[in-house]
Amino acid sequence: MDIRTLTDFAADLARAAAQETLPRFRAGIDIVNKAQGGFDPVTEGDREAERALRTLISDRFPGHGIKGEEFPEKEGTEPWRWVLDPIDGTRAFICGVPMWTTLIGLEHEGRPVFGIIDQPHLKERWVGETLSNAKSLLVTGPAGSRVSGCASLSEARMMATDMRAGEYFSDDEAEAVLRLGREVRVTRQGLDSYGFALVASGQMDMVVEAGLHWHDVAAVIPVIEAAGGTITDWQGAELRDTGGTLQVIVAASPKLAEDAARILRA
Amino acid sequence: MDIRTLTDFAADLARAAAQETLPRFRAGIDIVNKAQGGFDPVTEGDREAERALRTLISDRFPGHGIKGEEFPEKEGTEPWRWVLDPIDGTRAFICGVPMWTTLIGLEHEGRPVFGIIDQPHLKERWVGETLSNAKSLLVTGPAGSRVSGCASLSEARMMATDMRAGEYFSDDEAEAVLRLGREVRVTRQGLDSYGFALVASGQMDMVVEAGLHWHDVAAVIPVIEAAGGTITDWQGAELRDTGGTLQVIVAASPKLAEDAARILRA
Repeated sequence: MDIRTLTDFAADLARAAAQETLPRFRAGIDIVNKAQGGFDPVTEGDREAERALRTLISDRFPGHGIKGEEFPEKEGTEPWRWVLDPIDGTRAFICGVPMWTTLIGLEHEGRPVFGIIDQPHLKERWVGETLSNAKSLLVTGPAGSRVSGCASLSEARMMATDMRAGEYFSDDEAEAVLRLGREVRVTRQGLDSYGFALVASGQMDMVVEAGLHWHDVAAVIPVIEAAGGTITDWQGAELRDTGGTLQVIVAASPKLAEDAARILRA
Repeated sequence: MDIRTLTDFAADLARAAAQETLPRFRAGIDIVNKAQGGFDPVTEGDREAERALRTLISDRFPGHGIKGEEFPEKEGTEPWRWVLDPIDGTRAFICGVPMWTTLIGLEHEGRPVFGIIDQPHLKERWVGETLSNAKSLLVTGPAGSRVSGCASLSEARMMATDMRAGEYFSDDEAEAVLRLGREVRVTRQGLDSYGFALVASGQMDMVVEAGLHWHDVAAVIPVIEAAGGTITDWQGAELRDTGGTLQVIVAASPKLAEDAARILRA
């Protein structure tokens, strides 16, 4: 797989998704509540963007697998699989907050090696790859392409999308994150995957999440790794598609990740 | 006071503040922790922007009073007073999140009648006035200038900057907001005054805050009122500069505000 080909294709993919998402952002949108009970909105834009991405990918790479949130998985005949989340941060989207992102990841033999985080309203895009020895990250928009390197909890700017128990965190997880929050310089909520991108750009130092799905992180892994950051579960282990929900720590340095993990597990 | 003069002046003010804030956003910034113990960062940009605003206002309207967060109040000789918060959402600012705003309000005999909410990174600006009979709101950027009109809690998109007890909310307030959060369609955290602006643009339906200061709301009041929304305290009473902290409800309709206030007080 040629990096240049992939990078060019990334722009096509992001553009195709944006054609479906942007016209629906800050406009009247149809929301179908797809979960019984819990709040898990899915917009027309989410569905249409995934459809557009699947078409582009299937035309270009007919042997690749495709896994998305909205439609059944397409099995591939090659060791490559795309993982799609056209609108990560659906709540932000329906509240007019331009902090949702389009996530497009590519795995090779189960390991994410190429990822796109795109915010088309802000015209910001992060495209990372760990296929080459150089591990490159291309950032479009007014932000850096390197983690801060912050290695001290007391200096760290930390984000979790919703720190309350019952949303993403269990009671125990919320308790652990509260404990960690007391050790850091500042905490921020409400960013979804845009927070991961800010760590890659050296603006934020750490993101701690739980209850995430594989499609929330597959695109993020190559971006964070190419920016020089670490991304693991709360045990410090590599993230994998387990089929279940995931605890995630993204950090600007291995030391910060280890110190955070120790407090989360305490 | 002529509306056109004020509106033109608003652009000068926003530009002057942005000259001090924008170059420091997503760059290395000096942070002085001005509170002992608690986290209350104040950036160089905050100080320098307030200085620039004070100079512009004093040159143009020498008889007007000026109240800002960073410097002592300037007493006026006329019934007009400006209320300044150059960087509302300092935490967002230092985390690279473009959801901070510059707030500039103008009171006449103690009542805010003109307000600017500016987000220069996104090039979004809300300028509202309630001096004229028409009550006009000028919005720059891709958003509306009218509240949604939502009158049903179960349909409402609600924001509070940090729902946890101990940050802005007391234990009782956090409990009340949690209760309210269960009644609405979706809750969102982490927006500071940008959330108020989204209500004015019909994107969000309600914001509930506590622990705010007068400089957090003086500019917001004319914007919300000109957009057709309501802004009161949790008792449903008009907001005033009490010198202390404020509980605030902003809503897209009187019915929504009343229903929310009833649950908050329950």
